[in-house]
Amino acid sequence: MKLATFRATGTVTWGIIQDDQAFDLGSLFHAGRPDLRSALGSDLAEFKAAASRASRHALEAIEWLPVIPNPPKIICIGLNYDMHVKETGRSAAQYPTLFARYANTQIGHGAGIVRPRVSTRLDYEGELAVIIGKPGRHIARADAWSHVAGYSCYNDASVRDWQRHTSQFTPGKNFPGTGAFGPWMVTRDAMGEIGPKRIQTRVNGAVLQDATLGEMIFDIPHIIEYCSAFTRLEPGDVIATGTPGGVGDRREPPLWLKPGDTVEVEIGGIGTLRNAVVDEAPA
Amino acid sequence: MKLATFRATGTVTWGIIQDDQAFDLGSLFHAGRPDLRSALGSDLAEFKAAASRASRHALEAIEWLPVIPNPPKIICIGLNYDMHVKETGRSAAQYPTLFARYANTQIGHGAGIVRPRVSTRLDYEGELAVIIGKPGRHIARADAWSHVAGYSCYNDASVRDWQRHTSQFTPGKNFPGTGAFGPWMVTRDAMGEIGPKRIQTRVNGAVLQDATLGEMIFDIPHIIEYCSAFTRLEPGDVIATGTPGGVGDRREPPLWLKPGDTVEVEIGGIGTLRNAVVDEAPA
Repeated sequence: MKLATFRATGTVTWGIIQDDQAFDLGSLFHAGRPDLRSALGSDLAEFKAAASRASRHALEAIEWLPVIPNPPKIICIGLNYDMHVKETGRSAAQYPTLFARYANTQIGHGAGIVRPRVSTRLDYEGELAVIIGKPGRHIARADAWSHVAGYSCYNDASVRDWQRHTSQFTPGKNFPGTGAFGPWMVTRDAMGEIGPKRIQTRVNGAVLQDATLGEMIFDIPHIIEYCSAFTRLEPGDVIATGTPGGVGDRREPPLWLKPGDTVEVEIGGIGTLRNAVVDEAPA
Repeated sequence: MKLATFRATGTVTWGIIQDDQAFDLGSLFHAGRPDLRSALGSDLAEFKAAASRASRHALEAIEWLPVIPNPPKIICIGLNYDMHVKETGRSAAQYPTLFARYANTQIGHGAGIVRPRVSTRLDYEGELAVIIGKPGRHIARADAWSHVAGYSCYNDASVRDWQRHTSQFTPGKNFPGTGAFGPWMVTRDAMGEIGPKRIQTRVNGAVLQDATLGEMIFDIPHIIEYCSAFTRLEPGDVIATGTPGGVGDRREPPLWLKPGDTVEVEIGGIGTLRNAVVDEAPA
């Protein structure tokens, strides 16, 4: 099942995406489950049954919003594909590298990735996003999958000079309009095996990142075990699992995103997240 | 004026702290301002006038909660006092070092700082917390003060080995029960000049950090200008402005916090944040 957060006829809601239509479940369930985050623990059969009673919208008529607009936490994994570790000149690590995104950086499918006034070094990072459905602390690897609600595409767009102002990546990873997340999540039951799935990032059609999810250094159960050792995972938490090699920053010459570019992150079994690049509005 | 978030007779609310009493304004204003975060833009004269109608509780009868339990963002500044920069073996920086805390790490005055199962290297970091009251992006230094709602004490307690697993501090700064924040905030109008104020951290009464706020390398207007260049600041955002020298981690021998210890962060013009250290509950 595909679930999404979207705006239809002026109202922010969530629902099922199927056959070029968006089924508005948020309006049916708004009392107890006003947003997708609050609906993640529900039985999917209930959603399926409710779809027949739901308002429907053509996909062309909706505005896509970040799949989870209000995650309690966004945990980003750095340096999780061998080729990307090598291109940054680093050596293999014993632990996953983690940094945080604030929720106010996120945008949906089709929205503009914003090149800020203060930099031209805007870069793409195509990633698999894991959405947590069941809370937990100290989760063993063997139990990790049961905490996953589903998967989506993420573009962890980064402002490279601000990422390198100090040892900590925080500023370069937290500009508004840089965390593209969508178009929808595919629920875990519908995803099948993760490892063979391909992840590709394209800019104006040119393939710049191309890997399989099985190339991750720290796989999803390992990441969930590590993160849940220091924090309680909550429904709606988002883990961006790291980007493959091929970022613009490490190319010769570097390839920075500029207004008018189109960036696509496509993941097998999910779909394609597409965003144009726009300049930050002038003061 | 002192404002706080607290639990009284089973209910989470917020209000004024004055003369050993807590005045429950949250119950009066719950429609539009259910929490202190949502009340930060209000005129303080309105609070003062409402206090006469508010339920009162003796301070011994309330449970202190984090001053802002639900900040949109917690931005922590690292390496912002010269002596602390030197004790970590680093050199002076051009930009402030920033990392993020998630809101689920916070506790109030009097609650237990939790030593996790996975480490014994729990350390204190006494800091001044700045609470944002007025939203803004691209805030000039000259305008920065008008965005500050008030100040509080923060103990940015850190799990040092997990902070050093990789280049990014995130895990070591995000264990539950490590972000102590309180007891209250002092509104900007009541704080007076920041620079001469003293900040002290004591463990079991021994003074381990002792500095004035004027020793910050990047002062509050500089921090607000820098942060607002990459993110929109929102009411309720919390900026922990960095810790002075004297952390336990850099002592010979190192001084780790252990269950039964009492940690106090005292800041002139604000008061004392006091927390005991407890072990994480067993599995």
